[in-house]
Amino acid sequence: MEAKLKELKTRLMEIYDLQMAAAIIIWDQSTYMPSGGAAAHGRQQGLLNRLAQERFIDPAIGKLLDDLLPYAENLPPDSDDARLIQVTRRDYEQAIKVPPEFISEFFAHIAQSYQTWTKARPENDFNSVKPYLEKTLDYSRRYSDYFPGYEHVADPWIDRFDYGMKANQISKMFGELRKELVPLVKQITDQPPPDDSCLFQSYPEDAQLAFGVDIIKDFGYDFDRGRQDKSPHPFTIKFSLGDVRITTRVKENDLREALFSTLHEAGHAMYEQGIDGTYEGTSLGRGTSSGVHESSSRLWENIVGRSKGFWKHYYPKLQETFPEQLKDTSLETFYRAINKVERSLIRTDADEVTYNLHIMIRFDLELAMLEGKLPIEDLPEAWHTRYKADLGIQSPSNVDGVLQDIHWYQGAIGGMFQGYTLGNIISGLFYDAALQDHPQIQSDIESGEFNSLHGWLKENVYAHGRKFTTDELIQSITGKPLTIAPYIKYLRNKFGELYSLS
Amino acid sequence: MEAKLKELKTRLMEIYDLQMAAAIIIWDQSTYMPSGGAAAHGRQQGLLNRLAQERFIDPAIGKLLDDLLPYAENLPPDSDDARLIQVTRRDYEQAIKVPPEFISEFFAHIAQSYQTWTKARPENDFNSVKPYLEKTLDYSRRYSDYFPGYEHVADPWIDRFDYGMKANQISKMFGELRKELVPLVKQITDQPPPDDSCLFQSYPEDAQLAFGVDIIKDFGYDFDRGRQDKSPHPFTIKFSLGDVRITTRVKENDLREALFSTLHEAGHAMYEQGIDGTYEGTSLGRGTSSGVHESSSRLWENIVGRSKGFWKHYYPKLQETFPEQLKDTSLETFYRAINKVERSLIRTDADEVTYNLHIMIRFDLELAMLEGKLPIEDLPEAWHTRYKADLGIQSPSNVDGVLQDIHWYQGAIGGMFQGYTLGNIISGLFYDAALQDHPQIQSDIESGEFNSLHGWLKENVYAHGRKFTTDELIQSITGKPLTIAPYIKYLRNKFGELYSLS
Repeated sequence: MEAKLKELKTRLMEIYDLQMAAAIIIWDQSTYMPSGGAAAHGRQQGLLNRLAQERFIDPAIGKLLDDLLPYAENLPPDSDDARLIQVTRRDYEQAIKVPPEFISEFFAHIAQSYQTWTKARPENDFNSVKPYLEKTLDYSRRYSDYFPGYEHVADPWIDRFDYGMKANQISKMFGELRKELVPLVKQITDQPPPDDSCLFQSYPEDAQLAFGVDIIKDFGYDFDRGRQDKSPHPFTIKFSLGDVRITTRVKENDLREALFSTLHEAGHAMYEQGIDGTYEGTSLGRGTSSGVHESSSRLWENIVGRSKGFWKHYYPKLQETFPEQLKDTSLETFYRAINKVERSLIRTDADEVTYNLHIMIRFDLELAMLEGKLPIEDLPEAWHTRYKADLGIQSPSNVDGVLQDIHWYQGAIGGMFQGYTLGNIISGLFYDAALQDHPQIQSDIESGEFNSLHGWLKENVYAHGRKFTTDELIQSITGKPLTIAPYIKYLRNKFGELYSLS
Repeated sequence: MEAKLKELKTRLMEIYDLQMAAAIIIWDQSTYMPSGGAAAHGRQQGLLNRLAQERFIDPAIGKLLDDLLPYAENLPPDSDDARLIQVTRRDYEQAIKVPPEFISEFFAHIAQSYQTWTKARPENDFNSVKPYLEKTLDYSRRYSDYFPGYEHVADPWIDRFDYGMKANQISKMFGELRKELVPLVKQITDQPPPDDSCLFQSYPEDAQLAFGVDIIKDFGYDFDRGRQDKSPHPFTIKFSLGDVRITTRVKENDLREALFSTLHEAGHAMYEQGIDGTYEGTSLGRGTSSGVHESSSRLWENIVGRSKGFWKHYYPKLQETFPEQLKDTSLETFYRAINKVERSLIRTDADEVTYNLHIMIRFDLELAMLEGKLPIEDLPEAWHTRYKADLGIQSPSNVDGVLQDIHWYQGAIGGMFQGYTLGNIISGLFYDAALQDHPQIQSDIESGEFNSLHGWLKENVYAHGRKFTTDELIQSITGKPLTIAPYIKYLRNKFGELYSLS
């Protein structure tokens, strides 16, 4: 059995290396590639992913897993090997259900869909993407049909990103959250908005980038095992446990852009850097779900990086870096500026309070489309209607409406959005639990010390990789199932104080 | 047959894409990779190369080639398809002769050998690399034994890099060249050396890099299909016909370092960028040999980039870029400085006249080792003896002696060096032929115009890729076999004038 386990691990390592090599090509595409490289980069990346997929659905892996399953059942259920076999089996069962031809057809379609969207968006041309979206929806529903017996047609997609979560459970939780958020947004936006003009002065780009880098070094992002480059859209990407990179983008006239994306991506990257080294190249060797991943990025970006205590330490440094721009701006003014709540059209620019409303609109529209209740041709109008209802505003066009996000044009309709809000909810839970274990975390943050928080996350979340599901992690950390209560409390406290709410 | 040819091309394209993906990993290793990524990058690169190799020696390829050979024989012998089938067959016959286990063993050994060398060189510790070199020599001889019937034991290695050339032929030609060079070096170095202190002032690195980039844009290196980055050692690397990159290194206190390495690598890169687009992903889609590759790089670096006419155009621009440093240095002084001939120990720093002496020492030592006439333990002394004899100087240690070059520590003993001097010789031939076709090339260069030269090279050399062997190219361009005469004439003219020789 040891030999079979070893063979499984050898095969998984090879698959991992093919995927990681494809990731290097993706990173290069988004950072340094000259335009002439696009076609071959795309082809090479497609080849590596196909080879990885072929190797994973090889019946020899199924046979190894069949042989190893009884062995796993005799191991302690929480042992690494038992979990490795179990998680690999789950992945394998999922992978073999979908015919390889479906996957290549779908990816070929998606490549065209993405190309069409990049042209359609600036031209506000929903009609040209409409047939692609219709086909994407068709593919998305057919994908789910490979998993008969689902409770909701979105569940097979949600399983890919947030394993174990169900559409109905998420809908219910999101409904509760919306009930809290809509009145909170109203209470806040009934008041005069804070002055955030300090953020929109001229800030030299190199100095902005260097400032963000200094902070994430303090966080504990390991630059010996990563680096930051510029790219059109910020992302985190992993080539190995020893090389987890982030990218950012910088706007000279908007201090928020580079800074908060750097903190956010560092949160993703520290998760991957913190995974137990022995899991590398196995099914356990990455973050367990979109939701838990996003909990780490949002925790570092928002709960830490937009907190008063954090800026008590860093604002004097920011003033030193940009003395001309900030000499007349007080800490309080700056803190209010970076936490300004407003009804806006763009998800990625949204503040902590309204952000989830943007997500829940998209999640609900996804479900409706998958259920067959919302035809693509009615999607633009449905988008506007929901924005009007939930956020009280409406985009004058589809550019900042249904053409806004890349997700449905570069992937499936299904499973794409819930992770963001799950992440926010879970960040509240985890931070609350960390504070209970280490009450000094908040005072540490005020001194620019992050070992207590980072250490807690590493020990309780990061190190485990995919050994535990989202639900298991939450249960083991909090002793209870997922709940929105700590997150709501966090928002109420923070924004209650900021906006002097009763 | 069309279908079989198509299948062959599809298989070759997949192999090419695996090799190119490995190249992206190599490039990343040398440019941006954080130290933590080294192990996985090495593993991933090894995997991709192994998969490419496995796919190439697949008997299915042999079968396709067997089937296609009679078809090729009925095609016009210089047609692309005939040549493609013929060159692929040659590669295939070469590849299947060497057992895959030999290759993996050899590469595993080389990885250790290289690691040992990186530590041994700064410590002048020949003893620690000695057992590795002995093993490398053993592997190198065993490799040749897979090709029984060779004329010289080095020939199978030379075939890998300079197909069709033979050790005995090269030795004879190098002997003629040495007979010319040794007295020329003596004549020159008997005179007082020119003052080259202007090169060793403080030159800001970014300005140095930008200056080199402007020149190679004028040359015709296409930045839409390439880019330049910094790396510890300059190199050219290709990810596709649309993405051929170069690297350079820069020294603040030595103007030669970045500038001439940029011109040199651009020469390599323009060759690859200039290959006929329809050859991409086939056996014809790269430069035909080390020698022809080096002829392009040395032509642009030396024949163009160290010529008086070139600097008539660019020296005023260089003075504009570095006015403080160069305002009191005349064009003549600068031109003499960049062409200073001196007896030196380091190959990569050598001038045009002495450079080939460095190469020929290494080539002769390689032959002697492979022939079994020079045991590794006698190599350091043999190195010193030859330097004393050919260059009149001797390194005080092995650091700048036998530990100097990476080649024997990161590759075989055999085939490693002849390409450099072949390249110099061929650059003289090609430039001579180009001038005969387009006498205006020299006046064009004086105006910073390179279309006539670049166009000639593209049409006569670059475009053909591996369609023709080195010998065939030379024969078709000059109507004669390879000869050293034009190169010797070039050196005599240039350095005769520079040093007022009779």
